[in-house]
Amino acid sequence: MPAIDIEISEVGPRDGLQSIRPIMSTTAKKDWISALAAAGIPEIEVGSFVPARVLPQLADTAELVAHASSIDGLAVAVLVPNLRGAQDALAVGPDKMTVPLSVSETHSLKNLRCTHAQVLQEVRDIRAAIDALPAGQRPKLEGSLSTAFGCTLEGEVPERKVMEMAEKLVAAGCDEVGLSDTTGFASPTQVRDYIRAIHRLLGRDKLTGVHLHNTRGQGFANVMAALDAGLTTIDASMGGIGGCPFAPGASGNIVTEDLVFLLESMGLRTGINFARLFAARQVLAGALPEVELYGFTPEAGLPKGFRPATAQ
Amino acid sequence: MPAIDIEISEVGPRDGLQSIRPIMSTTAKKDWISALAAAGIPEIEVGSFVPARVLPQLADTAELVAHASSIDGLAVAVLVPNLRGAQDALAVGPDKMTVPLSVSETHSLKNLRCTHAQVLQEVRDIRAAIDALPAGQRPKLEGSLSTAFGCTLEGEVPERKVMEMAEKLVAAGCDEVGLSDTTGFASPTQVRDYIRAIHRLLGRDKLTGVHLHNTRGQGFANVMAALDAGLTTIDASMGGIGGCPFAPGASGNIVTEDLVFLLESMGLRTGINFARLFAARQVLAGALPEVELYGFTPEAGLPKGFRPATAQ
Repeated sequence: MPAIDIEISEVGPRDGLQSIRPIMSTTAKKDWISALAAAGIPEIEVGSFVPARVLPQLADTAELVAHASSIDGLAVAVLVPNLRGAQDALAVGPDKMTVPLSVSETHSLKNLRCTHAQVLQEVRDIRAAIDALPAGQRPKLEGSLSTAFGCTLEGEVPERKVMEMAEKLVAAGCDEVGLSDTTGFASPTQVRDYIRAIHRLLGRDKLTGVHLHNTRGQGFANVMAALDAGLTTIDASMGGIGGCPFAPGASGNIVTEDLVFLLESMGLRTGINFARLFAARQVLAGALPEVELYGFTPEAGLPKGFRPATAQ
Repeated sequence: MPAIDIEISEVGPRDGLQSIRPIMSTTAKKDWISALAAAGIPEIEVGSFVPARVLPQLADTAELVAHASSIDGLAVAVLVPNLRGAQDALAVGPDKMTVPLSVSETHSLKNLRCTHAQVLQEVRDIRAAIDALPAGQRPKLEGSLSTAFGCTLEGEVPERKVMEMAEKLVAAGCDEVGLSDTTGFASPTQVRDYIRAIHRLLGRDKLTGVHLHNTRGQGFANVMAALDAGLTTIDASMGGIGGCPFAPGASGNIVTEDLVFLLESMGLRTGINFARLFAARQVLAGALPEVELYGFTPEAGLPKGFRPATAQ
């Protein structure tokens, strides 16, 4: 595998597919995951262990973990909302499990029907379940701080509340926390300040990744702030599917294809091959012809004479 | 007028309107310019002094300069390709005249049918025409370095060529140079490096503004780089009209509305009122119902509890 400066974590198969109405077939999902991995995407969040009646789009997550785990060198991530989901996940052995905690408790109650105390108890139980496994089989546990930069229900979310929850997630057993701009409220100043504050509070190894939205066009300005603060993993979604799209031409999630172009144009190696990345986009487009894909670079093409940092 | 940290130069009436087929009526343009000024936009490029047979969309530029000049506190900018255009401009007295010079000579020959030597001679002649005016009536003269970050015809444009042309433009009589990512090739690293290099070469007061495109989604990442390098003027276009749009949802120019949100969210005052800015967008939309307007913030709305840096 080529050397990588910035790791792109592709969340399309989970965050993207859960947000759209059409259900992609398991075969198509496997093809897409294989195409993403073939392009050099180092980590893919393949699904979520939630009840099928809640998210029928992701009912085949266990099968996708098995498929993705068979791909050499690919890190396989899943979302788990609670111990029950984590147990299902541990049965198939992903490399990483992410538990979301909404810093806005109003949002947490409304979305997950859980108080902070309840989520933290689930995290402790998940930690215990992981530690009961043999050392070589323990996935990494991440606590994702959603609505970290503001909430559509509460409005401003105080920075000290974000820090408090980050600390509690690590105390409850998370190996790492992640910052998530669930609502597209984040500014570059906030992104930079929060990352630095968490690094000071918990150590740099406790926060390496960020999940940014492009709701108000600010996605890549926030990526610049995250890079500036030293993060090395950026979530993105192929074709920008998922997140909370509002406008025509507006994607919720930042677009993987454009993010790869941005990073490579800055001399930062993603390990990704453009031709294969665009081929993976075709696989997605072919499987979901009714879903609009976003992204500027696939349409504009690479600049004449462009030299990516990653050897192609 | 409120204090301003970053000045937005609205290029829609020139760069936007010259790129679309429908011709906006002079009355509608005046209404739009008035609405932009009422929102607090400090500088507007209202048109270009080119022959009407080349750009019939901009044939009323002289009348627009007169209208815009009657608005208190508004800086009125125009594009002039040569001495002939500058003479027409000087007859109506704009605050700023911009002469484009394409750093890629291939592009210059193809687009303006001029060699670098010919453009520089026009700049010297324009300088002389300005200096023949009484001191209080002399507009600022800017040389805009187009295709500075790469060219669709030549590919890579060497940095030393950009520096050479910047130096020659100032020597020929420009008060300032501007950097323009005409082709949407620029990366944040390049933007930062080129700005710093020009500042070292010519002094910080010789480069204060930048014209960025969003062709590959990188527009606001490049804005961050420009801010980081200390620039204080950013060109943008309402609704993202103009530039070189490729894709659905892709604007060539960066979108004024989203840029104002980005800057204000970072605590940087633009002096702009959001409600009036969105009202100006409605004026534009009403005048050009067949043209698609881009921009995330007008659709998503401001975040709940959002506090702009500029008092509203």
